[in-house]
Amino acid sequence: MTTDTMLAVVKTRPERGVDITHVEIPRCRPYEVLVRLRATSVGDLVSAETYIPCGHCYQCRTGKPEVCRHLKILGVDTDGTFAEYVALPEVDVWKNDPTNPLEWTAIQEPLGNAIDTVLAEDVAGKTVLVTGCGPIGLLAIGLARVSGATCIFAAEVSPLRRQLATRMGATWVLNPLEADIVEAIRAETHGDGVDVLLEMSGNATALRQGLQALTQGGRVSLLGLFEGPVSLALNTVVILKDVRLYGITGRHIVATWYKAARFLQSGLLDPSPIITHRFPLAEFVQAMHLIAHGECGKVILLP
Amino acid sequence: MTTDTMLAVVKTRPERGVDITHVEIPRCRPYEVLVRLRATSVGDLVSAETYIPCGHCYQCRTGKPEVCRHLKILGVDTDGTFAEYVALPEVDVWKNDPTNPLEWTAIQEPLGNAIDTVLAEDVAGKTVLVTGCGPIGLLAIGLARVSGATCIFAAEVSPLRRQLATRMGATWVLNPLEADIVEAIRAETHGDGVDVLLEMSGNATALRQGLQALTQGGRVSLLGLFEGPVSLALNTVVILKDVRLYGITGRHIVATWYKAARFLQSGLLDPSPIITHRFPLAEFVQAMHLIAHGECGKVILLP
Amino acid sequence: MTTDTMLAVVKTRPERGVDITHVEIPRCRPYEVLVRLRATSVGDLVSAETYIPCGHCYQCRTGKPEVCRHLKILGVDTDGTFAEYVALPEVDVWKNDPTNPLEWTAIQEPLGNAIDTVLAEDVAGKTVLVTGCGPIGLLAIGLARVSGATCIFAAEVSPLRRQLATRMGATWVLNPLEADIVEAIRAETHGDGVDVLLEMSGNATALRQGLQALTQGGRVSLLGLFEGPVSLALNTVVILKDVRLYGITGRHIVATWYKAARFLQSGLLDPSPIITHRFPLAEFVQAMHLIAHGECGKVILLP
Amino acid sequence: MTTDTMLAVVKTRPERGVDITHVEIPRCRPYEVLVRLRATSVGDLVSAETYIPCGHCYQCRTGKPEVCRHLKILGVDTDGTFAEYVALPEVDVWKNDPTNPLEWTAIQEPLGNAIDTVLAEDVAGKTVLVTGCGPIGLLAIGLARVSGATCIFAAEVSPLRRQLATRMGATWVLNPLEADIVEAIRAETHGDGVDVLLEMSGNATALRQGLQALTQGGRVSLLGLFEGPVSLALNTVVILKDVRLYGITGRHIVATWYKAARFLQSGLLDPSPIITHRFPLAEFVQAMHLIAHGECGKVILLP
Repeated sequence: MTTDTMLAVVKTRPERGVDITHVEIPRCRPYEVLVRLRATSVGDLVSAETYIPCGHCYQCRTGKPEVCRHLKILGVDTDGTFAEYVALPEVDVWKNDPTNPLEWTAIQEPLGNAIDTVLAEDVAGKTVLVTGCGPIGLLAIGLARVSGATCIFAAEVSPLRRQLATRMGATWVLNPLEADIVEAIRAETHGDGVDVLLEMSGNATALRQGLQALTQGGRVSLLGLFEGPVSLALNTVVILKDVRLYGITGRHIVATWYKAARFLQSGLLDPSPIITHRFPLAEFVQAMHLIAHGECGKVILLP
Repeated sequence: MTTDTMLAVVKTRPERGVDITHVEIPRCRPYEVLVRLRATSVGDLVSAETYIPCGHCYQCRTGKPEVCRHLKILGVDTDGTFAEYVALPEVDVWKNDPTNPLEWTAIQEPLGNAIDTVLAEDVAGKTVLVTGCGPIGLLAIGLARVSGATCIFAAEVSPLRRQLATRMGATWVLNPLEADIVEAIRAETHGDGVDVLLEMSGNATALRQGLQALTQGGRVSLLGLFEGPVSLALNTVVILKDVRLYGITGRHIVATWYKAARFLQSGLLDPSPIITHRFPLAEFVQAMHLIAHGECGKVILLP
Repeated sequence: MTTDTMLAVVKTRPERGVDITHVEIPRCRPYEVLVRLRATSVGDLVSAETYIPCGHCYQCRTGKPEVCRHLKILGVDTDGTFAEYVALPEVDVWKNDPTNPLEWTAIQEPLGNAIDTVLAEDVAGKTVLVTGCGPIGLLAIGLARVSGATCIFAAEVSPLRRQLATRMGATWVLNPLEADIVEAIRAETHGDGVDVLLEMSGNATALRQGLQALTQGGRVSLLGLFEGPVSLALNTVVILKDVRLYGITGRHIVATWYKAARFLQSGLLDPSPIITHRFPLAEFVQAMHLIAHGECGKVILLP
Repeated sequence: MTTDTMLAVVKTRPERGVDITHVEIPRCRPYEVLVRLRATSVGDLVSAETYIPCGHCYQCRTGKPEVCRHLKILGVDTDGTFAEYVALPEVDVWKNDPTNPLEWTAIQEPLGNAIDTVLAEDVAGKTVLVTGCGPIGLLAIGLARVSGATCIFAAEVSPLRRQLATRMGATWVLNPLEADIVEAIRAETHGDGVDVLLEMSGNATALRQGLQALTQGGRVSLLGLFEGPVSLALNTVVILKDVRLYGITGRHIVATWYKAARFLQSGLLDPSPIITHRFPLAEFVQAMHLIAHGECGKVILLP
């Protein structure tokens, strides 16, 4: 390693905005690995699990490191990955098959989120509603489709994302600003409602509608984060319906990565429709702006 | 059957209150059974499942009659059981062992609710918090104890019910008006929190505290019904904690009855501490008054 | 109903063989339905659940009628269905969508067997071995494929059935008479073995090989019936591997029928490749002969 | 550490028998811990997980280290623990509460085996048969009892162990050499059979009888290791009964240890009846002789 500095996106001031600047390349502690994206000097193309468990708490010792009580998030609690190099715990490094398309390295983490959300229980032979069709929601639609869901409803306000939802395999695509989601779903399901609700929007109204559209005894996975507390009529939409509701942090370390690799490498799931934009790292700000406006699928930053 | 009328509690006017009066004995349709409590003329001492499923909807045909979409509740959607005779669907009739104490017939339904709440997942080797110690909450404490919960916290405002919680097997009994439930539980569990929350109070604050006291990756059963919508910080107490949350209607027809009978007949669970009062049917109003004030365990009406 | 007799396949003598003859049309008892295949005079096209539960035993009352202890099998314990009319319990009658292809009515029961075998646990993102590719095994391959299995091995001696296995979606098709199944699977799975074994052959050697090819902690579903007792090295292939093994009777009444209907009606699963022969009912003997020799997929008898 | 040698049981010759001799104290590699039983120089009283997973295989990386494909067993694949010191991977060291009775350190591993066997599924409200009442079987009876099993049958040939089975909480204790196990269980369960079979004997006849005594749709856990292949009538005792059968390696690292500690420390499970003999380490041979003859519960070696 002959370089001492690297290009990185850094946040140096409290106001809105970031800088692209040169910073020192991090140094490794024992049991860490120095990683460079498309890292020819490291030798393998690796991906990083962004959840860094402590290894010592009750959760870590009982097989649930993903909900470690002292969990650090890469790039939130540590330096981030919008840079050329990052130092990572060995356990969080996933070695990619070098014959895979490079862009899959950017797909694996949202795909992992989608896998844990969709497959919290079996979807085969079931009807599904996905609320929110950002990149993870779109991957969830694709996964539900190839995992045997026989009817998939997608609810999304963005026209572009509704189009992508159809391409990923949604049977019915609804705009919640125009359609009565609950009535539309009941009409298409002989009054039964859907067996499964996958909440990916973080929108409280979407969750409430989804719970109403859910059949008695149905299942809910919650992945989308909400802006504040959410008010729910628990009696009618959860308790008296015998609903099972799962909070989803988004991965099982590293079982989820195995599944992600298999879905992609088998060709069963084609994620390419969801990649709508590609930017060089230097155009980070433009990319963030686009994402904030939502008229995109997955936006990929190239180092 | 030579009598044509019977004594019954009836609600004839919109204002608060009921009347005890003579009404006609109901007639049976095909596949119904005419039941008299302690019914020597029928020949067997039977109990009634109060959920009456339609038998034809998606739920009924897929093994979930307890969440039938056209469910009728005995005494709510049909004539009730504070009477001497009632006509019941054959499928909802449970034949009691004639050697059992008569009072168990009044315990089986709340015990069934407790069974489904506690055993939605295994509690053996786990720590449990029960919020709300009415009769069902007290039975839940007893059940969790005999089903292997190794530490049981009970939260309850009534002094009498806190005493009963201890008698039923709670390890720690807390008054939420005086103690900081969340801190007390963390202190006793090395900071882990409890593995299982059983919400039996229908009190939104109790639910919020219980969710905070729950360990990452823990399980919640919701049985208590709330007075209105409940506002929850879903991100922190459900989603990022990978919590599994079950709405509990309160029975699986009739698997739950088998378990209830076994817990009682084996002597494993002794429900007698929770029976605090006994009234003749004619003193129905006094009994209801007592229940409304909460300073009681299970109140039994004797026909 | 003006006819008093119908054409039926009957077994009247202990020796090998059956007769096609005229017999009386059965009469209905209460809660039974008289059914004619493609029954224009009944009004609906119905299918029959062949498991007839008693409704009164422990299993029936606890939601497992498919393992009723007094179970009768239609056509084994009662008169069969190779006839024009049959009387059936109302609960066992499944009303088909009249717009479906008629041949699906012959596919639904083996498809139900395949559904319960494949989906005893989730297969999404997993590797699967199917031993035995008769009609049910072939449907299992198709189901595993559309339910997210990312790699499917099929083992079968018949060349025709191996071809059909490929058409139904098997990734690798092996002839156990020529290939070393265990080695071939280990080689293709980086030494891991398969996550799931679906045993559909009823062949003890196939089961033993499948168990050896299974990964540590894997899952087995057993549907195929064996000719006699089976000798297994339980220590190495089950106990020390933490294997979960499910005996599969082949349906959950009637949840499995819902799933079967959905897989077919959604177009997700196309069963047409497995239908290799069609015979009129009068050529029953020729059809049985063909099935006995195994060089066929599903053989359909047309009334 | 001033001593260079320690006392150890070693196997130096192929013939039957062992020697007690002085050997070198092992040296630690990185991430290992040097452990002395009742180790005052180490500072904590620790117990050792005897399964040493590799940390790199598919099983290790997907949360199943207990079925690691390169698993080493402490004392089988490595030097053993019938010595004063042993070097252990840090992850396999369990720190005991110093206020616990010393003998619990010898109970925790068989208790862990019992926990995984009994609690592979919930036993609360269920009937259970335990075949084989060695130390682990006896702990399984105690655990099933305190985890809500409402009726426990125990089958065992040794009179002493049958007595211990009763003391640990068995409802009915049977001698398979004298009683017809299957008939006795059917008679006591209204013909239903037991819901759960826990096979701890490694005896093929016991397994076959247990499977016959199991109710339709019941559950089996297999822990006992058999002397050779076992012949089973899979059709009638597994497949057509919809039986779920679990191979049990005996721990989940280290979730099982948490449960074991909780059952003991809460006082819920009292293991003391099963400890029938105590020997100093130097009398190792006498202890092994006693164990081989089976007229004992747990035999403890004191260093």
